Amino acid sequence: MPASNRNLPAHLLNVDERFFLIDCGEGTQLQLRKYKAKFSRLDHIFITHLHGDHTFGLPGLISSFNLLGRKNDLHIYANADLEKILNQFLSHFFTRLDFSIVYHPLNVSAPELLYENKKITVHSFPLKHRVPTCGFVFREKPRLRYIRKDMIDYYKIPVKEIVNIKNGDDFMTEQGLVISNALITNDPEPAKSYAFCSDTGYTEKIVSYIKEVDLLYHEATYSDEDIERAKKHFHSSASEAAAIAKLANVGRLIIGHFSARYKDIAPLVEQARKIFPNTDAAEDGMVITIQD
Amino acid sequence: MPASNRNLPAHLLNVDERFFLIDCGEGTQLQLRKYKAKFSRLDHIFITHLHGDHTFGLPGLISSFNLLGRKNDLHIYANADLEKILNQFLSHFFTRLDFSIVYHPLNVSAPELLYENKKITVHSFPLKHRVPTCGFVFREKPRLRYIRKDMIDYYKIPVKEIVNIKNGDDFMTEQGLVISNALITNDPEPAKSYAFCSDTGYTEKIVSYIKEVDLLYHEATYSDEDIERAKKHFHSSASEAAAIAKLANVGRLIIGHFSARYKDIAPLVEQARKIFPNTDAAEDGMVITIQD
Repeated sequence: MPASNRNLPAHLLNVDERFFLIDCGEGTQLQLRKYKAKFSRLDHIFITHLHGDHTFGLPGLISSFNLLGRKNDLHIYANADLEKILNQFLSHFFTRLDFSIVYHPLNVSAPELLYENKKITVHSFPLKHRVPTCGFVFREKPRLRYIRKDMIDYYKIPVKEIVNIKNGDDFMTEQGLVISNALITNDPEPAKSYAFCSDTGYTEKIVSYIKEVDLLYHEATYSDEDIERAKKHFHSSASEAAAIAKLANVGRLIIGHFSARYKDIAPLVEQARKIFPNTDAAEDGMVITIQD
Repeated sequence: MPASNRNLPAHLLNVDERFFLIDCGEGTQLQLRKYKAKFSRLDHIFITHLHGDHTFGLPGLISSFNLLGRKNDLHIYANADLEKILNQFLSHFFTRLDFSIVYHPLNVSAPELLYENKKITVHSFPLKHRVPTCGFVFREKPRLRYIRKDMIDYYKIPVKEIVNIKNGDDFMTEQGLVISNALITNDPEPAKSYAFCSDTGYTEKIVSYIKEVDLLYHEATYSDEDIERAKKHFHSSASEAAAIAKLANVGRLIIGHFSARYKDIAPLVEQARKIFPNTDAAEDGMVITIQD
């Protein structure tokens, strides 16, 4: 349930101004507008599971896409049942949409590559919840090497060779001399990564999939005192989220999906920080940049 | 469509701490929480028509009612199709609700008494829109007369007579003397009334149904310059809303349902005020008390 100061789940991931939406609780389109996200740059929506708090924003978002004149395909990665549910519901409100929705059913029993472009890959992996649920991990592909400007000049490297050198090739001069790649390039920044794990009970099976991501969002629906309730409802406690972050050796942990029973979530953050210090609580409208 | 500072339609009417919801756009439950409305005091929902911007908040609101342990019946007054649409949709998310939804299909061709309790009546009446649409008018019943405390003492009026006298009866003393009601009571405050008209093109047919209401909400989706667009889409311009208010001789007009094309709605308010001066624009979270 939403609280007076906490809306329902949705994360927007910006990769070079292309947007990826993860979950779409009621009110997501209102928040997207509030924070000035460009609807036209959102082509891919990832839905962890078919509970209302993660999906009830879809009809409104899809309606607004249509009113805004969308023509591009919209890709939705979700449990296979969503296609039937949304088609049935939307058919009462639209004779037709002016764009296509392409549904990609999730594999709810094994990890799978869902999407890939030049920059990133997106994999799903099973979580542990009352209904089939997947987490998602977004990983940048290894970046190209930085070619040294001074070396281009010095060896008179032609433009057509530059892509190969950025990809790690050595360079051969006109005289047949081989210049090692290490001499003419610098290491790029490490590729960045982000994982979204909600809703889920504690399960170490996910650790290998989210290993060393820069930013992990992991639900912490309950405080440690309510761990029995967490187990019963297949949710995690704050310390459990932190234990996963520690095992996976991630860079930073954001916890969220707090039960509406907690007015103040500072105690949950403290519980998590005892195990994984670099933890913060998700807040509505929070923006996190994964820095180089 | 919502704008960054304007949510979707929903009005909450408070009659002596019993709540009546009119329309339920996406995010309504979030706004109800934000403004601290008590969910347990809301038993009646009136839906003007089955467009998404007026209905997509229903699944989330109903889910939250269930999570909050609701047992009381929920009455929904709407186009007959809503029952099938909601049952179908919700069946994918709940095995069952712990309360009953009682659907009351609207008569979309003639005015009708929808609901009545000791205090108020609620009537629907047809509006003029692309799909069957009704407005609603809430009228307090005539209030009981104020019985004068000094007269109770003077004539030694027994308690059992007081209700009859408040209802207008004369009083007969033990000696058989008839005391006129006018002598022992004062006039009550006039009964209050409120009407909701959205979405609708300009139609004078509604005037008789909303005659002299204290507060009229009438849509003004478009500015007067866009009146052709208003006609085409069966919406009203600001001046048209004001003309209806004037013809119906209402106390106060609130205009709303503004197209997302208008960043600034001050010009629409000015247009309306030229015809009906006591006009204001609806704002998110606005609270209006219909004063005695």
